[in-house]
Amino acid sequence: MELDKSKYKHKETLRVRNFQVDSQGIVHNAVYLEFCEIGRVEYVRNLGIQLLPTGIFNDGVKINVKRNEINYESPAVVDDLLDVYTRISYIKNSSFCFEHLILHHETGKLLVTQKSVQVNLNHDTNRPARLPDNLRKIITDFEGDNVEVLE
Amino acid sequence: MELDKSKYKHKETLRVRNFQVDSQGIVHNAVYLEFCEIGRVEYVRNLGIQLLPTGIFNDGVKINVKRNEINYESPAVVDDLLDVYTRISYIKNSSFCFEHLILHHETGKLLVTQKSVQVNLNHDTNRPARLPDNLRKIITDFEGDNVEVLE
Amino acid sequence: MELDKSKYKHKETLRVRNFQVDSQGIVHNAVYLEFCEIGRVEYVRNLGIQLLPTGIFNDGVKINVKRNEINYESPAVVDDLLDVYTRISYIKNSSFCFEHLILHHETGKLLVTQKSVQVNLNHDTNRPARLPDNLRKIITDFEGDNVEVLE
Amino acid sequence: MELDKSKYKHKETLRVRNFQVDSQGIVHNAVYLEFCEIGRVEYVRNLGIQLLPTGIFNDGVKINVKRNEINYESPAVVDDLLDVYTRISYIKNSSFCFEHLILHHETGKLLVTQKSVQVNLNHDTNRPARLPDNLRKIITDFEGDNVEVLE
Repeated sequence: MELDKSKYKHKETLRVRNFQVDSQGIVHNAVYLEFCEIGRVEYVRNLGIQLLPTGIFNDGVKINVKRNEINYESPAVVDDLLDVYTRISYIKNSSFCFEHLILHHETGKLLVTQKSVQVNLNHDTNRPARLPDNLRKIITDFEGDNVEVLE
Repeated sequence: MELDKSKYKHKETLRVRNFQVDSQGIVHNAVYLEFCEIGRVEYVRNLGIQLLPTGIFNDGVKINVKRNEINYESPAVVDDLLDVYTRISYIKNSSFCFEHLILHHETGKLLVTQKSVQVNLNHDTNRPARLPDNLRKIITDFEGDNVEVLE
Repeated sequence: MELDKSKYKHKETLRVRNFQVDSQGIVHNAVYLEFCEIGRVEYVRNLGIQLLPTGIFNDGVKINVKRNEINYESPAVVDDLLDVYTRISYIKNSSFCFEHLILHHETGKLLVTQKSVQVNLNHDTNRPARLPDNLRKIITDFEGDNVEVLE
Repeated sequence: MELDKSKYKHKETLRVRNFQVDSQGIVHNAVYLEFCEIGRVEYVRNLGIQLLPTGIFNDGVKINVKRNEINYESPAVVDDLLDVYTRISYIKNSSFCFEHLILHHETGKLLVTQKSVQVNLNHDTNRPARLPDNLRKIITDFEGDNVEVLE
């Protein structure tokens, strides 16, 4: 897990809302997965790729989340501004991995670290399929040496 | 709005969860619309109608919510058990109206009253279409004198 | 309900997220209440009032939603940008009313109209209490002739 | 990760709701963390421990989620019934680990495996504190040989 935020080339700033906290008054553990997903969607929008109403990206790629890992380092409360940092750490044959740091916007305190493995699915069979070469190129052009290509 | 719970022939009991409260520690105002929807889905399941993965019912009917009205009488907190009462109060040509009471299960205290106008949509045009006769019959058979037929 | 968007002095633009749609692929009816609440919180932030971690505003005012009315005119889908317009239409002794229009950002199409009655609560008793004069002044200064003062 | 469901002594059955699916029509990845939390709350209720409105359990223990790991094996859709299996796999000094399997109720197909590390917090300092002996005893009495005590 990359903890150096300078290795993350994308940042999205979000506000914690009243309906995102739990009975302890802190952001509910599941909500951070929503925050990370917002980070991912904005990361790929920045690369020119957009989510369609069908849940498939406009380059024809259908992605599902295969695995999430998330560590809660410090809690956030309602109305906090959070910085969601997003990077792609590796690309394999049909899968790739997003990493996120979530920091408190004003204090810079680390709140959450997250890894999310995504898999490319064939539209018809819903089985894993090789990530298209154009998507590989877009990602490696953007991430440069920060992304490992493992296949 | 019918306040006499004996006029409601369907009841669904739900538990308030940790992620459904807000920063004041009470159930968030939007979440009660989810509770009412659960009441509606279970009400129609009791009539032999089931929601399909496409969001359309298994009798071919596609329903959208047209209007919600909700009054918050008293708050609920995490782990409370709630009784969601559901009835259909009227049927028009293409629309019909659900009414709900939400009561605290243990104390019987009234927490919420809700009205929800539903409209039947033509699958192709997404425009309002007359409610099928078989659905009308199922509803009027179940509700009896409690439902007004207005057309 | 005021349908003329020029009467709304506050606008907040939001993106529809993947977890906010339902099985028909359209924004779930309850989620619009979250969107309207975001509009309200940003409206009052613009007036210099901020939500604290306790769910109480930093001017000491504790507000609860008393009633919501919402009409669904047209559906939104994932990744749509929405404009949430917010105004305060009237102030009574202990309560006041927000009105919202939600429009599709690109097309300007009207998606939702919403009214939300808020009540000021005494912190200790949780019973309705007169809205403080300073809050009345801030609102009437901002809204001008657009707000009715009814008491 | 324990994949043998006979090692899980607690099962909670849940219905997938319309507002829990995403734009692909499948349960959103974050929602499974809510399902697992419901499993945990019902697991501890079965041991005689209840969540209070403050988000603290009625035996005085304040628990926060420290880490979640979740693998998505197969998707669920709206109206599916899911079986959430819950066990505690280990207890350390101040932390312990829940494991969950989520299976499709009718087909028995494995949908999700999940691990969740919980930490006991001192109420005043919010720093990790040793799990009370009575809680340790309740857990080890229930789980028997299935739980590892590591301290």
